[in-house]
Amino acid sequence: MTAEKNTVPHGHTISKSDRRELLAQNSKIIWFTGLSGSGKSTIAGKVEEVLNRRGFLTYLLDGDNVREGLNKDLGFTNKDRSENIRRIGEVSRLFVDAGVIVLAAFISPLKEDRKQVRALVEPGEFLEVFVNCPLEICEQRDPKGLYKKARAGEIADFTGIDAPFEIPDAPEIEIQSDKVSVEQAAEEIVRFVKPKIELE
Amino acid sequence: MTAEKNTVPHGHTISKSDRRELLAQNSKIIWFTGLSGSGKSTIAGKVEEVLNRRGFLTYLLDGDNVREGLNKDLGFTNKDRSENIRRIGEVSRLFVDAGVIVLAAFISPLKEDRKQVRALVEPGEFLEVFVNCPLEICEQRDPKGLYKKARAGEIADFTGIDAPFEIPDAPEIEIQSDKVSVEQAAEEIVRFVKPKIELE
Repeated sequence: MTAEKNTVPHGHTISKSDRRELLAQNSKIIWFTGLSGSGKSTIAGKVEEVLNRRGFLTYLLDGDNVREGLNKDLGFTNKDRSENIRRIGEVSRLFVDAGVIVLAAFISPLKEDRKQVRALVEPGEFLEVFVNCPLEICEQRDPKGLYKKARAGEIADFTGIDAPFEIPDAPEIEIQSDKVSVEQAAEEIVRFVKPKIELE
Repeated sequence: MTAEKNTVPHGHTISKSDRRELLAQNSKIIWFTGLSGSGKSTIAGKVEEVLNRRGFLTYLLDGDNVREGLNKDLGFTNKDRSENIRRIGEVSRLFVDAGVIVLAAFISPLKEDRKQVRALVEPGEFLEVFVNCPLEICEQRDPKGLYKKARAGEIADFTGIDAPFEIPDAPEIEIQSDKVSVEQAAEEIVRFVKPKIELE
């Protein structure tokens, strides 16, 4: 038997809209994509700070809380990286269903993977933020020392070095993170996002 | 390289306690374990209804929203069932970190699997509800027709038939679901849980 045939829906009475009503907010996925060192997680953290202070319930998913927990069984092969993003997408969908505004900060280099996450939720619920930063700058910053290791051949398939980063065609927001401060980036994102997360 | 070495913590400013403050509630995992047909998901749904009406933000995880999404790659072998519970535990941990009260309704027949979920969160954050219902009654009810299939040999390793259900030694709550109504069960659980989820 397949999993599907072994489960029958229950039809619970409390729905996404009940939870949104309780929180007085519209849940969304704000998805940050970009190279390692582009500032995704830092900017997402600042956005979370601003939104929390304005009374919105947010949750930030990034490597810190996902790679050592839910996805600790996954490595960095192409297959595992896609599975990593798939699971993060599914978890984000559950959070949106729970009424929570999810900020997800992951390199997520492949268009197809990001597209599949977008397709998991309703139209307008997935907001893609492309944190655009030239590879040279990311490599100069190298906050985790990973580029150095990749150049030395100690990490294989490193995005930007020997694995592709597929630039988003039509992200909802693009941040040139080498040209603006973290605060400016967060402000721009909050300005865009706020009307969408406020309950009408 | 392992996943661990490839990630470096960011130290974001908004914490679990900020989110609990915002929601004015203490997040917990309320974990319902019991045989198929024991009423776990129905009782959990009723608890959610009561808590939502009292202003608590809850989220119910069960086969409906997990087996066809996050865990759709998993089957029903022992290994896959343990991985199913492991992932649900990790997702529950993220929800608790987000400030949300999670209700998780899964057969979760093995003590070891449940123990591992309990160990993922802080002491007192995991509340185990044993929905105790005699096998004969569950089999009589058979709301999904699964016992019939298991008896006919169409489903292998079915809990209670040809796979064990390990009774919890010290659940926080035990509900004899053949002896009380869904409403009574929910009321008892809410009475126990409420002082623990209220912010001091």
